Amino acid sequence: MAGNTFGNSFKLTTFGESHGIAIGGVLDGCPAGLELDLEAIQKELNRRRPGQSTIVTQRKEPDKVDFLSGIFEGKTTGTPIGFAIYNTNQKSKDYSHIKNSYRPSHADYVYDKKYGFRDYRGGGRSSARETASRVVAGAIAKQFLKDIRFNAFVSQVGTLSLDKPYTELDFSLIESNPVRCPDPETALKMEEYIKEIRKEGDTIGGIITCVIQNVPIGLGEPVFDKLHAELGKAMLSINAVKGFEYGSGFAGVKMKGSAHNDPFNSDGTTKTNHSGGVQGGISNGMDIYFNVAFKPVATVIQGYETIDKEGNKVKTQGKGRHDPCVVPRAVPIVEAMAALVLADYTLIDRTVKL
Amino acid sequence: MAGNTFGNSFKLTTFGESHGIAIGGVLDGCPAGLELDLEAIQKELNRRRPGQSTIVTQRKEPDKVDFLSGIFEGKTTGTPIGFAIYNTNQKSKDYSHIKNSYRPSHADYVYDKKYGFRDYRGGGRSSARETASRVVAGAIAKQFLKDIRFNAFVSQVGTLSLDKPYTELDFSLIESNPVRCPDPETALKMEEYIKEIRKEGDTIGGIITCVIQNVPIGLGEPVFDKLHAELGKAMLSINAVKGFEYGSGFAGVKMKGSAHNDPFNSDGTTKTNHSGGVQGGISNGMDIYFNVAFKPVATVIQGYETIDKEGNKVKTQGKGRHDPCVVPRAVPIVEAMAALVLADYTLIDRTVKL
Amino acid sequence: MAGNTFGNSFKLTTFGESHGIAIGGVLDGCPAGLELDLEAIQKELNRRRPGQSTIVTQRKEPDKVDFLSGIFEGKTTGTPIGFAIYNTNQKSKDYSHIKNSYRPSHADYVYDKKYGFRDYRGGGRSSARETASRVVAGAIAKQFLKDIRFNAFVSQVGTLSLDKPYTELDFSLIESNPVRCPDPETALKMEEYIKEIRKEGDTIGGIITCVIQNVPIGLGEPVFDKLHAELGKAMLSINAVKGFEYGSGFAGVKMKGSAHNDPFNSDGTTKTNHSGGVQGGISNGMDIYFNVAFKPVATVIQGYETIDKEGNKVKTQGKGRHDPCVVPRAVPIVEAMAALVLADYTLIDRTVKL
Amino acid sequence: MAGNTFGNSFKLTTFGESHGIAIGGVLDGCPAGLELDLEAIQKELNRRRPGQSTIVTQRKEPDKVDFLSGIFEGKTTGTPIGFAIYNTNQKSKDYSHIKNSYRPSHADYVYDKKYGFRDYRGGGRSSARETASRVVAGAIAKQFLKDIRFNAFVSQVGTLSLDKPYTELDFSLIESNPVRCPDPETALKMEEYIKEIRKEGDTIGGIITCVIQNVPIGLGEPVFDKLHAELGKAMLSINAVKGFEYGSGFAGVKMKGSAHNDPFNSDGTTKTNHSGGVQGGISNGMDIYFNVAFKPVATVIQGYETIDKEGNKVKTQGKGRHDPCVVPRAVPIVEAMAALVLADYTLIDRTVKL
Repeated sequence: MAGNTFGNSFKLTTFGESHGIAIGGVLDGCPAGLELDLEAIQKELNRRRPGQSTIVTQRKEPDKVDFLSGIFEGKTTGTPIGFAIYNTNQKSKDYSHIKNSYRPSHADYVYDKKYGFRDYRGGGRSSARETASRVVAGAIAKQFLKDIRFNAFVSQVGTLSLDKPYTELDFSLIESNPVRCPDPETALKMEEYIKEIRKEGDTIGGIITCVIQNVPIGLGEPVFDKLHAELGKAMLSINAVKGFEYGSGFAGVKMKGSAHNDPFNSDGTTKTNHSGGVQGGISNGMDIYFNVAFKPVATVIQGYETIDKEGNKVKTQGKGRHDPCVVPRAVPIVEAMAALVLADYTLIDRTVKL
Repeated sequence: MAGNTFGNSFKLTTFGESHGIAIGGVLDGCPAGLELDLEAIQKELNRRRPGQSTIVTQRKEPDKVDFLSGIFEGKTTGTPIGFAIYNTNQKSKDYSHIKNSYRPSHADYVYDKKYGFRDYRGGGRSSARETASRVVAGAIAKQFLKDIRFNAFVSQVGTLSLDKPYTELDFSLIESNPVRCPDPETALKMEEYIKEIRKEGDTIGGIITCVIQNVPIGLGEPVFDKLHAELGKAMLSINAVKGFEYGSGFAGVKMKGSAHNDPFNSDGTTKTNHSGGVQGGISNGMDIYFNVAFKPVATVIQGYETIDKEGNKVKTQGKGRHDPCVVPRAVPIVEAMAALVLADYTLIDRTVKL
Repeated sequence: MAGNTFGNSFKLTTFGESHGIAIGGVLDGCPAGLELDLEAIQKELNRRRPGQSTIVTQRKEPDKVDFLSGIFEGKTTGTPIGFAIYNTNQKSKDYSHIKNSYRPSHADYVYDKKYGFRDYRGGGRSSARETASRVVAGAIAKQFLKDIRFNAFVSQVGTLSLDKPYTELDFSLIESNPVRCPDPETALKMEEYIKEIRKEGDTIGGIITCVIQNVPIGLGEPVFDKLHAELGKAMLSINAVKGFEYGSGFAGVKMKGSAHNDPFNSDGTTKTNHSGGVQGGISNGMDIYFNVAFKPVATVIQGYETIDKEGNKVKTQGKGRHDPCVVPRAVPIVEAMAALVLADYTLIDRTVKL
Repeated sequence: MAGNTFGNSFKLTTFGESHGIAIGGVLDGCPAGLELDLEAIQKELNRRRPGQSTIVTQRKEPDKVDFLSGIFEGKTTGTPIGFAIYNTNQKSKDYSHIKNSYRPSHADYVYDKKYGFRDYRGGGRSSARETASRVVAGAIAKQFLKDIRFNAFVSQVGTLSLDKPYTELDFSLIESNPVRCPDPETALKMEEYIKEIRKEGDTIGGIITCVIQNVPIGLGEPVFDKLHAELGKAMLSINAVKGFEYGSGFAGVKMKGSAHNDPFNSDGTTKTNHSGGVQGGISNGMDIYFNVAFKPVATVIQGYETIDKEGNKVKTQGKGRHDPCVVPRAVPIVEAMAALVLADYTLIDRTVKL
């Protein structure tokens, strides 16, 4: 029951460590006959890539995906799609600050305890670099679900929050700024704030909102595999995520049922959408929307005290080039995981009726 | 990939509709040799049972569990534990208000669309009655994990919130009041408020906080099956849940990394616990704590307008005896799902090292 | 990864011990809208039932199935179908010959070693009584696959073998005799032979041949879940089975490729069918046929020497009423498992193309 | 539910087509801390490699495995082990005889029907080349199970059969001849016979026997995932396999129970071993032994008539360099699949007791 596989019918298995030979994956179950736009896949990867703007890590990683199987004459064949992203940047570095000590709020300590030892180079398997494989598979899922629109964006950075309802936003502006916030004014403030944080050698958290539109009615498998439960797991499996809410979410607890219930229109749509597009675990055709909370990145470029393997106190500091705020680069990851869930549930839904 | 199974090694499959012959389940993978306290299991069920106080539904359902297999001479045998809770209250009723119309923010509409038709009696499979089976299996999981303590409690009802950190609470007071809030003063306010809501024929949402203590280091399976991701899915699969956050959660997004990071003590414990007991998806031995947001129950005892199967507007109202607020009865469900996750991951963790 | 679940999309989980309260199961993933003929299901169970003829065990077990969920207004709802067969015959008996000693070629010894102890009454979970649950689910699978015909029959008992090719047999004669051999002459010989064996207090093995007709092209999931591989596993999971071969089987090893290859007709059918209806793990539309080898039942009504838990030699003998030859009653089990595989693969095949 | 994953806890997912960029896989769940002998892995691959002797295909494929992840400082880390075998021999060839026509008893036709089209180069995904990935993972499994001995060998080619019981064979002779038959005299006859067959431009079937020794008691998960059922599936999933039998197998059907039962010695071992080391689906500590039947390779270097996509008759013939008999090269594949099953079940067995 090793945990590196996601999905049932549209199933991704990933492999790879931050500074190993390659990361990559196998996508099994992608339906045959899908014409793949490989450039569009690479483009999604580029959205996640380091170095794309001044507010993200300046590491140099080309993140070019190579497909190894499962595609023939430009189309998926129904056989597993193997792919790899070779780590071109794996030169031997000085890892002494990581090798023998445990960075606070990183996975170093627990990996050592769980597995007995760990590949400490750049965080090894626990590095968010692994999510590049998810973006590749998610980009294929998006092409499979060509009628469904996935729009994730940054809605909060620290205390700076985008307070407009998503229905008033122009999603075409998401990519117009490095923060990936569709409100240019708020985006600018967030950008300035992230730059300040970076100067301090510190980091800050944020929230990504994702809106999925044009979803067919009927996706979701009660009682345990409810659509929003799988979306929640998908999001919570992304590095640094601390919370997930959909529809009315945590704010909904303050509402009365008479106000929270979504009255039907005669065509089955609803006048309000506190439900967030899911009822009883099944999509109802309305927009699915949810928020994903990211903690501040644990690697701070400030001195700090921690412990080594023997429990001795050691002084150290973060090295290298890190993100002061993870949410701008996490936007395509959130979309990718959402697309993987919907692709999987689209296939599963084909099996529930005569 | 039908969705009625939860867990991998400690695996529960449930069945049953609200007003069918029985609900129940099969728990497969419970280790052999566990001496079961059957009364303790029934006691957990009683915590979820209708009619236990004046602020919950007054329906009469004895909810007695019958074990059908897997137990011999008082101990689990390692074979599947089948169990059933017979529905004694399934007399033919008037369901005309449900049969041909769709209650707002219920699953009626989507079940019809997904499956072509539905067992409309009392909500059928989408009824929260199903969670009784989870409580049974969860109670067994608790007995398997006898050193781990699961303490869930109500921390918010509507806008009434328990603002003390959990470390200042006395968990032994949780069962001292019908709300299941360990702060007697707040509990009383919540109780009064729920009674008011009931008088209005309305409902209200709430939050359950769960604290898991004495967790071994090392539970959790990166990268997709992170411990908190599976906990999140488990909670989100419970009826009416809209959100999940663990550790610093949504509040954590406002913090800087330098403040959010949990410094180590020399024994590997941490001075703070913003991480919520999980690092990189693996338990670190600190308390695991999380919040679960419940929406207000959709069934309101007020008149409302909705649509029938043909899309015609119909006037109707909630009938029968319903919970004005679901969180007091959901406390044992949250604990049960948490215990199922930890039992499963405890078994899986046995396989990761030589 | 407890082993009591079979199938992926059409998924059966069984529970129950030979002499516990009940055996039964949960069938999850049966498509919604299937009108169920409950009598036909019971009829399949009756084919497996003890006491149906003079050549099978004379135990009295009514084996009546009770459905607990998942069916409404005569149709499957798409929710899990729970069912139970209550053990009416579980009176306290004398099990001292089993309790403390290990019967040769039974599972007593390995259950004790694997699980630490066992429910020794009538073999507990290792009893073939468990297969009744498979027959129930298989009968539902047959109704789902209404165009596919499953014809299993006894083709060998001891050295008495039915040597006609199946194409020359009249399957309507299978149920015309207690052996379930469609050739009346051979059936009679087999019947006489089994009676002799019973008089000796001994048992004898046999072979069941199964022919599946009218199978759509395209069922089977390479590379590991090839159709015949899953059929093989299904058959080998039945008590007492020692071998499985399909198409040309073991005899095929002696053939040359030029003779073994099945030439195509212009409509895609083949002139011969050494392939047994499966190519590369995928059904090709031709008849699927296979043989299943059953060992002689281990319980012999003769005195024998064995060991007790401490390894001491003990003399004992089989008690009760047992089958001298298992194959006549195993015919519906073979069909049931075949139907479960084909139902599962039919659903999965819906997901492989755009 | 895509079928390219094998195993639950020790889990292999493979990818790749015969003439694509690479074949390979991801092995997830291999326990951490295993020191890997990479040369031993390559050596297993070399046993499967084309061109190793005069009786196998003379294709040139170096089959060098590259590991991409999951290994650090020579040891497994507990994270997924990604690996690839690059196809160095994928030059554009003339595939016109395969592209538009269907070779008899190959998977061409069913792949086209199932997936709508296929990668026809060299058989694509249906090529036995895929099994190289299994050999890599199986070699790791063997190193994990260092106390268990896997000895597969050729016991029959056409009608030439090795009639000694395996207990009289010297397994150290298996690799002493190109047939991989441990009886030198029989091996020589088989070798001569295969050469004749090759000259005829024809192919011949064969049987591989596998003996697994030093197996711990207790492996196997009733009721569906019995050890021999999973071994059977594993073997039947190998290209060209038509049958599987273990212990007494098909011959056992002719025996009486009194003779077939294996009497216990006082230490729990048995005097005979008709059971083949498995009772009730669980290993009993005795040798596990089984036979695997392989049909003659479908590609014959003779002219034959077949159909094209439109159903027109076409004359064609096998091209390239093919195996006249597949069993010598399949020996390491049988061992690999057996090792994968036992590795998986070894891990699962850790979870069944308190």
